[in-house]
Formats: sequence, structure tokens, C-alpha cells
Amino acid sequence: MRSIFRKSGHRFSDKKMRPASKDTVVPDIATMLWPRSVALIGASADTNGLRGRILEIMKGHPYAGAIYPVSRSRTEVQGLDAYASVADLPQPVDLAVLIIPARFVPDELDRCGHAGIRTAIILSSGFAEEGGGAGVRLQEEIRVIAARHRMTVAGPNGEGFVNLAAALCPTFSPVMDPGATALQAPQGRGVAIVSQSGGVGFAIFDHGRAKGLPFRYVVTTGNEACLETFDFVEHMLDEGATDVFLLLIEDVKSLATFERTAAKALRAGKPLIIGKLGQSEAGRRAVAAHTAAVAGSQAEYRALFSRYGVIECDDLDGMIDIAAGFLAFGSRLPAGRRVGICTSSGGAGAWVADACAAAGLDVPELDPATRAAIDTHLPSYGTSQNPVDVTAQAVHAMGYAEFARLMAGSPVLDGLIVVITGRYPRLLMGDRAPLAKLARETTKPIFMWSYTRPAEACIALIAEAGYPLFTDMHRCARTMRAMADYRAARAGFMSD
Amino acid sequence: MRSIFRKSGHRFSDKKMRPASKDTVVPDIATMLWPRSVALIGASADTNGLRGRILEIMKGHPYAGAIYPVSRSRTEVQGLDAYASVADLPQPVDLAVLIIPARFVPDELDRCGHAGIRTAIILSSGFAEEGGGAGVRLQEEIRVIAARHRMTVAGPNGEGFVNLAAALCPTFSPVMDPGATALQAPQGRGVAIVSQSGGVGFAIFDHGRAKGLPFRYVVTTGNEACLETFDFVEHMLDEGATDVFLLLIEDVKSLATFERTAAKALRAGKPLIIGKLGQSEAGRRAVAAHTAAVAGSQAEYRALFSRYGVIECDDLDGMIDIAAGFLAFGSRLPAGRRVGICTSSGGAGAWVADACAAAGLDVPELDPATRAAIDTHLPSYGTSQNPVDVTAQAVHAMGYAEFARLMAGSPVLDGLIVVITGRYPRLLMGDRAPLAKLARETTKPIFMWSYTRPAEACIALIAEAGYPLFTDMHRCARTMRAMADYRAARAGFMSD
Repeated sequence: MRSIFRKSGHRFSDKKMRPASKDTVVPDIATMLWPRSVALIGASADTNGLRGRILEIMKGHPYAGAIYPVSRSRTEVQGLDAYASVADLPQPVDLAVLIIPARFVPDELDRCGHAGIRTAIILSSGFAEEGGGAGVRLQEEIRVIAARHRMTVAGPNGEGFVNLAAALCPTFSPVMDPGATALQAPQGRGVAIVSQSGGVGFAIFDHGRAKGLPFRYVVTTGNEACLETFDFVEHMLDEGATDVFLLLIEDVKSLATFERTAAKALRAGKPLIIGKLGQSEAGRRAVAAHTAAVAGSQAEYRALFSRYGVIECDDLDGMIDIAAGFLAFGSRLPAGRRVGICTSSGGAGAWVADACAAAGLDVPELDPATRAAIDTHLPSYGTSQNPVDVTAQAVHAMGYAEFARLMAGSPVLDGLIVVITGRYPRLLMGDRAPLAKLARETTKPIFMWSYTRPAEACIALIAEAGYPLFTDMHRCARTMRAMADYRAARAGFMSD
Repeated sequence: MRSIFRKSGHRFSDKKMRPASKDTVVPDIATMLWPRSVALIGASADTNGLRGRILEIMKGHPYAGAIYPVSRSRTEVQGLDAYASVADLPQPVDLAVLIIPARFVPDELDRCGHAGIRTAIILSSGFAEEGGGAGVRLQEEIRVIAARHRMTVAGPNGEGFVNLAAALCPTFSPVMDPGATALQAPQGRGVAIVSQSGGVGFAIFDHGRAKGLPFRYVVTTGNEACLETFDFVEHMLDEGATDVFLLLIEDVKSLATFERTAAKALRAGKPLIIGKLGQSEAGRRAVAAHTAAVAGSQAEYRALFSRYGVIECDDLDGMIDIAAGFLAFGSRLPAGRRVGICTSSGGAGAWVADACAAAGLDVPELDPATRAAIDTHLPSYGTSQNPVDVTAQAVHAMGYAEFARLMAGSPVLDGLIVVITGRYPRLLMGDRAPLAKLARETTKPIFMWSYTRPAEACIALIAEAGYPLFTDMHRCARTMRAMADYRAARAGFMSD
């Protein structure tokens, strides 16, 4: 790992150097993510621009704390009293959000420190991602100022964050437009996104909420001058309310922080699902320009990830599907890679069998006892070998649940994929109670893949019954594989 | 190829043997797909069963021809006069649709022949897919009877077909439920699906119509006792109204038919996009049980496909995306594998660059002249290297079209991927006319990938402008690669 990391916990390069004092300050991420009040520095009335949009978005959600616009030119912004400087605020705030030209950021951050503001996020661009010169120096100034005031600082060049439970959205991401779905904080298990890329971080959120993932946080970290991805992850692990992490990273800045955090997550059984940008030459060129990250070698990252059971995924929707698999069956991970396929379409069953093989899963022939139990229900043109083609006829008569229950009992299987057509709810409606019972009682993960476009009623029914519903067979197979690998990695780690 | 095909044009196996007379009869697929009247043998009043559902579906679409239910037990079925036998029909029909128990099929097919019916589709199961014995003998009987009457016969064990222009749907697929979207026949370029698997064939249709593909036919071929996939493809090529083919096959039954058809398609520049089931051991087991197909060796199929520029794709949505790419830019295929990436999100640009590399595409640095032209429009934190990160700021000011136009002019690029956020239409609305102009004028393919979930208005705007819109970056990259490979394969084939 020498080429990309140093064991000291810092990576030193000509582009970036972190003051030694950083590790001596425990970052106060709790205050940053749960502030009682926020100052928005650079607030604007023009909602066509980013500086106006961020206030519009923050105001559009029912955040209970105070929002103070800070503006050099106006005494009122979007209906709120504005202040000429953080020094003039009516009370000390917990969080400063800076969206002003890069060259003004250091002085403003310094003023925040003097005003007693403990945490700040910097959304402005124009720092180290510019590739040298003034931008790099400005970013270094930020680090020095943050250390001097012992401030907890995220960014620059990020896109802010969302705390769904607090309804706090200091971001200009159009995904958080109040016109879109209302924020819903998770009731039980929560999912967090931490992403260096603002655009992709919020895109993951956008796709994931459409699939019903219970998000708790979306945090974008940008250039990571001070706080990095795994600082946030570690805080959320300590907080204890996040069970699945979706991370989009361009580099790992501190090997020590990564290893400490990844070990903590693995011990707790809380999967880190990581998209790692910059795996190709063009991708590395892009991340250097994007956040000044040095993407490093794919093989080295892969070895590091595999040591800690980190689940790598190069596909946005794939990351979401893996999260859904863990949310439903994280406590009943597959003990191995042997998967059963239960299908009402022979062709779809054959295709997903191929997809399972491509994902490194085994699709073994079923044991005789299980076959005999299934055969009593099948017409002559069905087959119980595995894939089990139960035929449309038998499914119409019996539903899916009983076949799935029989298969889940087979000693040669570690998990099950049920191939359904979710096009029309009629078939599933009658199977609702047995499906829910099976989801509660099975000791093995059972996934649903709908080869037709599922209707809303089917999506809801399957979610309520307790299954993850896949619309892509490859992602379905890869999720099963990822969960089997995670169980194996965790078992190896815990026994070390 | 000896192990899976015989050069004679027939594959002889212990399971299946085709009468020698088959090749002497030119199948009358035109009459089958465009009948003036249809007899439905086995029609039922019970719309909960498949036999009742098929009539409900046929009646629910505005097919202009006559539909005659044939029923042993009823004189009226779902409001239509029913007939006890095909011998009693008031006029000779062009197509018989058989959905009766397998054991009755041979006699009924013989009666159809005597009644002068020239074409038949057999939807019943219970033939060679049962793996031996009576089913295999029944299927052989069908072939003999069809040959004796010189009838054109599809199936058995298929799920029927749809002719969208004729609004004819002899199928029980729930995807064709009249309650779903009305059928829309293509105005210009048309897409056909031919699939051995009924379930998957209609699933491809279901996903594809949601993406706006202009479908002309969906044909499911089942066990292919007589007609096989490439008989239909050849007919459609000769007919001339289908430009893109989506094929889902379990085997190639006649090498001669395949080679003649694939060569004809390649000469005409009409791509065959094929999903080939049975690539794994479990998949091969499944297709044998499904349609008695012998899936054969993946390597042999791959070599055969590559010789004829056949595009293999193991992903349902991927097949649809490749079709969309060809529909938009089939006449302007990429001359090579060098792709430019134009993005407003640095992270998304880096990620799709990685996806391009994974798909075997090159993402070269741009030439100095193109960079200079782009740089005049970029803020300091943007980059013109490729990926070209035009930044959200510049896109807000100028839109995407001008950057894409500059990049498309670069001599080092063969195609372009524009990374957009289609979440809100505001940004694209102002860019509408320049985008449409660029789509008309570009000589290189330009694809759009939205990393956020695109709004309906954006989907419509981009389709009207003339671009394929991708929601998955890997499928986007693979489509570019498939189109570049297709151009190379066709050039090689034409110069042979």
C-alpha cells in the first residue's frame, strides 16, 4: 500500500498537506449535522443562482432551527432578516454555510472562528481542484484557519448535506427541491450516503428514495480539506442510527482513519458499500481535476477493501440494490454462494441462472427430498431441478410462497431468488399473507426479481411483505454474492 | 462449429428431427402475422384462465379482422358466436390459434389443414420440453402434420405474438392487457422482438415501450417445432419495415437459416441484438427443460455471432438501450472507440469515464484546438481535458449543446456522451433548439446519460431533440461500444 498511503494516517503530496494538529482535534460532526441554528454566508435573493437556491431549499423544508442569511449588500433576503457579517448575528450559531467566491473564504472562515462558530461547510469551488497555484494555497489556508480555531470544517467544493430527521438541507442540489417528495426520516434502520461528489451523492439519494430506502443522511465532502468521508462514517457508526452506508469516494486520504472506521463497521455488521471513482486513466484524470484527489491503484484499493469486507460496486443502482438486500436480510446473510431460483417463466429462470453464474454464484441441482416435495405441485412441463420452473399454471393455482418455502428448506441452498412478474398485482394479492409469513420465518435471504416492470401495488406489497424487489437480474445476483462475501469476510475478521 | 450445428441446415438429435420436406415449403409468415381472420381454438369464457384471457386480450384491441372462437362446449364465448369445430367456420380463416391440451393438438392441427387454414400458432405446453416420451412424440406429430398440409406453424409452448400495426394480439401475456397502454404502431423505423421465451419476450416489450421504442412485432416462438426465430427475422427483413431486432434465443436450430439471415441483416445494416440463454451449466439445464433447446457452447456461439456482427447482450434493459442507440444514430455509427465525455458533474464524469474503460472504449485527452475553444467558456475550476467538466455554472449560462458541438468537432473523438441531470427540465428547456440542431447536424453519435432520475418533461425533450437517453452509465458505454463494433464488423463483412 506504500504507493498510495502512509501508515502515519496522512497522505503527503505536493498538492496537499494537513497540519499535524488535525488529529488532536476531535471533529464535532454532531454539531455540524444537528445544528440548532445556521448562518448562510453569501445568501442571495436570486433563486436562479446557486446562492439563492440554497436558501430557497433550506426554507422549503421544516427545519426547526434558525436560519440567518449573511449578505454584504442586503438587509433582507427571501423574507428573512439578513446580516452584514457573522459578527452581527443575534446569537452564536452552530453551523456556518459558506457559498462565496473562493478568495473570500479564508477571511470569512476566520471571522466565523472569532464569532465562536464551531462548524462550517464550504460549498464554494476554486480550490485545490484547480490543479495548482492560488487554489491550492487557499485550500491550505482553510486548513490552517480551521485548526487555529479548532473548527470542524467540511469541503470546500462540496454540495452540502441533508439531515433528513432534522429536515435540514444546506445544499443547492436540485434533488432537494422542496417541490420533490417530502423528506422522510427513517423509523428503524437507516441508510447514509457520504460522497465526495455532490452530483453523484445526491443522484444516489434520488434513485434510492424512489426505491424506498430509509435515508438518514446525505453528506457530500468535496475536496476534503479537513473532514474526509471516513470521519463522517465513524461519527455515524458511533451515533448508532445508521445501518448501511453508501459511499462514493475518489481517494482514501487517511489510511488510519479508513482502517479504524472500516474495522468498526465490520465488527458492528454495518456494511460499507463503496463506489470508487478513478479506476481508469481517464477517470483518474477526472478526479484529479474534480477534487484534486489522487485516485491510486485499483488493485491496491481492492486489496484494502477486501480485507475489511468493504463491498465495492461500480454501479449507482447496484449500490442501492445491495443496500436494499442488506436492509431486508442483513441479519440472515447467505452462508455460502449456493442459490436457488424459483420461477414462473422458464426463459427468465434460465437467464437469471446465467446471471448468477456470471456473478460467481452456484445454482446447484436440488436435493431429491426437496424435488419430490415440489414435484407434487407441478404440471408435467414444469421442472424442480433448479432453476425450479413452477410454471404460470402452478403459480396461478398456489402462488409463489409455498414453492419458495419448500426451496428455502433445501440443505443445498444458501439463498433464494424468486422470479416474478410484478406487472399486475392480482397474482400476488392472494399470496400476500404466506409471503409475509415466509419473509419473517426464513433463515435464508429470499430476493424477488420482477422481469416485467412492476406495478406500484406490487412494489408496495413486496416491500410490506419484507422482500427486496429487484428489476435487474444482474444486480439481484450481485447483491446475493456481495452478501455472501460480506458474511465470509466478517467471519474471517471476527475470528482473527 | 460441428458440435452444435450441422452444415446441412438441420440439427438432428435424439430429441428432435425435422422432416426433410421442411425446406421445400416456403413458410407463409406474412399470412400468419397479418391474417384477415383468426380462429381461436380452445376459447373460454373464464377470463381467470389463460384460454379466456387470450380472447379477452384479442377483443380488447382494435384488430379489424374477424375472430372466431372455437369451443366444444359453448355456442357463445365472451359475446362472440362460437363454433364446435374449425370445419364449421363461416369462412376459411388465415390463422388458427391453438390453446388446448397437448394431446388434442395433432388432431386439431390436422382438422385445420383440412379446413384450408394455412397458418397456425400453438400456445399449448406439454411437448418436447417435458424431456422425452409422449411430449416429444406429440411435437414430432405436429411437424409431420404441418408438412403434410404445407402449413406454417409456430410453437408449441409459445406465448403467441403481437402485430402492433394490425392491433392483433393472439397471446395471454398480461403485458398485453388492454388496460395497459394502447398499442402504437411505429411511424418510421420499427423494432421487432422475436423470443423463444414468451415471458421474457413480452418483458422486453414491456420495458421497451416504457422507453418509447417503436415496436412493430413481438413474436414468441416456444419450442420452435417448425418455424424458428430466424425464419421470422428473415421474413421481417424481406418485408423491409423492421430496422432493429431484439432476439432472445435458447439455441440456433438451423445454421444455414441463421447464416443466411444474419448476412442479409448485416448487409442491410439492420442490427440483430441477441440475448442468448443457457450460457451457464444451470442455464443450459433450464433451457433444456424450458423448450428442449440444446444451448451449446458459449464460445462457439460467440464466434458465430461475431462473424456476422450480431450484438450479444446479457441484459434485458441493455438490449433496449442498444436498440435506442441504433434507432437514433444507426446511420452515424462511431468510426472507432474514442469517446468524449461532456459533464456538468465532475464525479459523474469520472464515473462514466471508468465505465467507458470497462466497456473497452478509449477516453483520450482532447486536442489543443478543441480544448482552447472550450476553455474560453469555462470557469477556473472546470476542465477541458476529457472528461470535459463544464461545471454547473457554465451549463447554467450556456446549456450543454454548445459544449457538445465543440467536442463533436474534435478529430480525436468518434462519439460523445453528455452527462446531464434530467431531474428538472428548466435547464434543458432553454437548450432545446440548439440540442435539436446538433442532433440533426452531428456526424458522430451523441448519447445523453442522466445521472439523476429524469423527469418526464426531460425524457420527452431529449427524445424529440433526437438523442437516446440513458439512465445507466454502463449501458450507455456498452451501447457506444456495440455500435462501434457493429460498424467495424459490417465494414469487414462488406469488403470480404
